[in-house]
Amino acid sequence: MSTTTYACDLAAVCDAAARLAGVVHRTPVMTSATLDERAGRRVFLKCENLQKVGAFKYRGASNAVRKLTDAQAARGVVTHSSGNHAQALALAARVRGIPAYIVMPKTAPAVKKAAVEGYGGIVTECEPNLAAREMAASELVAKTGATLIPPFDHEDVIAGQGTAAIELLEDAPGLDAIVAPVGGGGLLSGCAVAGLGMKPTIRVFGAEPLGADDAARSKAAGEWVPQTAPNTIADGLLTSTGRLTWPIIRDRVERVFTVTDDQIRAAMRFVWERLKLVVEPSGAVGVAVVLSDEFRALANIGSVGIVLSGGNVSLDKLYW
Amino acid sequence: MSTTTYACDLAAVCDAAARLAGVVHRTPVMTSATLDERAGRRVFLKCENLQKVGAFKYRGASNAVRKLTDAQAARGVVTHSSGNHAQALALAARVRGIPAYIVMPKTAPAVKKAAVEGYGGIVTECEPNLAAREMAASELVAKTGATLIPPFDHEDVIAGQGTAAIELLEDAPGLDAIVAPVGGGGLLSGCAVAGLGMKPTIRVFGAEPLGADDAARSKAAGEWVPQTAPNTIADGLLTSTGRLTWPIIRDRVERVFTVTDDQIRAAMRFVWERLKLVVEPSGAVGVAVVLSDEFRALANIGSVGIVLSGGNVSLDKLYW
Repeated sequence: MSTTTYACDLAAVCDAAARLAGVVHRTPVMTSATLDERAGRRVFLKCENLQKVGAFKYRGASNAVRKLTDAQAARGVVTHSSGNHAQALALAARVRGIPAYIVMPKTAPAVKKAAVEGYGGIVTECEPNLAAREMAASELVAKTGATLIPPFDHEDVIAGQGTAAIELLEDAPGLDAIVAPVGGGGLLSGCAVAGLGMKPTIRVFGAEPLGADDAARSKAAGEWVPQTAPNTIADGLLTSTGRLTWPIIRDRVERVFTVTDDQIRAAMRFVWERLKLVVEPSGAVGVAVVLSDEFRALANIGSVGIVLSGGNVSLDKLYW
Repeated sequence: MSTTTYACDLAAVCDAAARLAGVVHRTPVMTSATLDERAGRRVFLKCENLQKVGAFKYRGASNAVRKLTDAQAARGVVTHSSGNHAQALALAARVRGIPAYIVMPKTAPAVKKAAVEGYGGIVTECEPNLAAREMAASELVAKTGATLIPPFDHEDVIAGQGTAAIELLEDAPGLDAIVAPVGGGGLLSGCAVAGLGMKPTIRVFGAEPLGADDAARSKAAGEWVPQTAPNTIADGLLTSTGRLTWPIIRDRVERVFTVTDDQIRAAMRFVWERLKLVVEPSGAVGVAVVLSDEFRALANIGSVGIVLSGGNVSLDKLYW
């Protein structure tokens, strides 16, 4: 009998789903005859780009914020992020009526800072390195008593992200497989726990840019490998997997596929052009995987669900 | 007692809805807290950019094609169009297994010709003027015995477009008003008939680019005014209203609002950025109207439905 204990189980995801009902959007699951044709099988897209703040991150952040006791909540929440988690945590905190302290590198684009402030977040700028970010966050925790909510390596965050897979399987119960992008692994590990919990025969795959392929290398090595010097257009997937997410990915995810930035750009354009959905590079990585020759060659997968994880891109440039 | 007979009534739209069930996508109705805030009221977007071929045109074309007798259908259908109707008719014909002859000006972009051919349409090129287009279409009808299905001024096309309003009101029954873009007027007249038929208290408005404002001028004059020399980014709305659509717009639409191309571009960008939906300029005109000071000043409209009519844009350029 296994003695491994994971940070998340199906019960935790179901609890999160109940907690988040009416709080997060139940995003639509979309299909496209052209996509099915190109993928060689039926494809179901879970449109988390249509989630509040434009990304699945609102699920995990809301679950974590809503689980705080009133006394904890009153002191607020803290994170360090310049990405979608920062916006998600700011909005989740505002909805509960509590402060969100967001540490951002002073090199972060002004538009990202403005987005966080638009959701009521209180931004603290720091030097652009991990040590400075962690230090600034620790100082805020010490000063305010606020609770640190990290972007992925947290049990309530993982459980919250897993609710996307519950909804996907409710809407498309016949799925043979689920593909989710992997950066820190919150979404992938949550979807693996929820997907396999609901349907033990389902196969769960990770989708990763070749320029930040630590999860694929970790899977191949059978042990955690950190990401160093990532280089990819998929800027939401740069980080290493975490202490809590990695064991789930190791044991519950069948395989992590990698795709090049050109494949990601092509998939992104396909989704914009044919599905009429604005998806960010990181959000299109699952589509790129499913359209790849390697994935198309897999047997016994009649239908696959893909999490389109986010849609937050600058519209001031072309990506192709 | 009025003796005016219109080309379309609620019964015809309901018939069309039954005929199109399972044929057209039942597109989602989306909302956005930010949009509500900016509009000063609740807004419901009927996402016809997510319809098959990327536009509501598939409704009218499918209704017309499916109403043909087997004998008529066997000889095929004809239209002259370089826009969404051409693609819609080509796909509707392919689904029924019959030929679609599409007359296009030889100056039409290669990508539009390729799109029609991608749906199995048989393209005939002609000189880029209305007389040449009509001549080429008549010749095809004479030669093949195919049925001409015009883009808007046809009773089955109007009834088909009206099904968008039926679905919108089913999903958002509390609406006080509906706003639809107007070019030839097929969508607007169909939505007026369906909307007022289902809910006699609803108010129906047209949305038109200032650079092609024949419907607004017609409404103001109380008589049909043709569009000459249109000049707008909303290239789906260049034409005059029709012999069949104008009487419905005259008698059933409360008012037609106009917006500038800058307003259209801003609305389009807002929809891409906040709703994560790719919408074409013509498709964003309703949003531009609802965000205008003039429309915001209207009293007694707590909630408004807008038809996002299409999403077919080139992704090779920026629109702002």
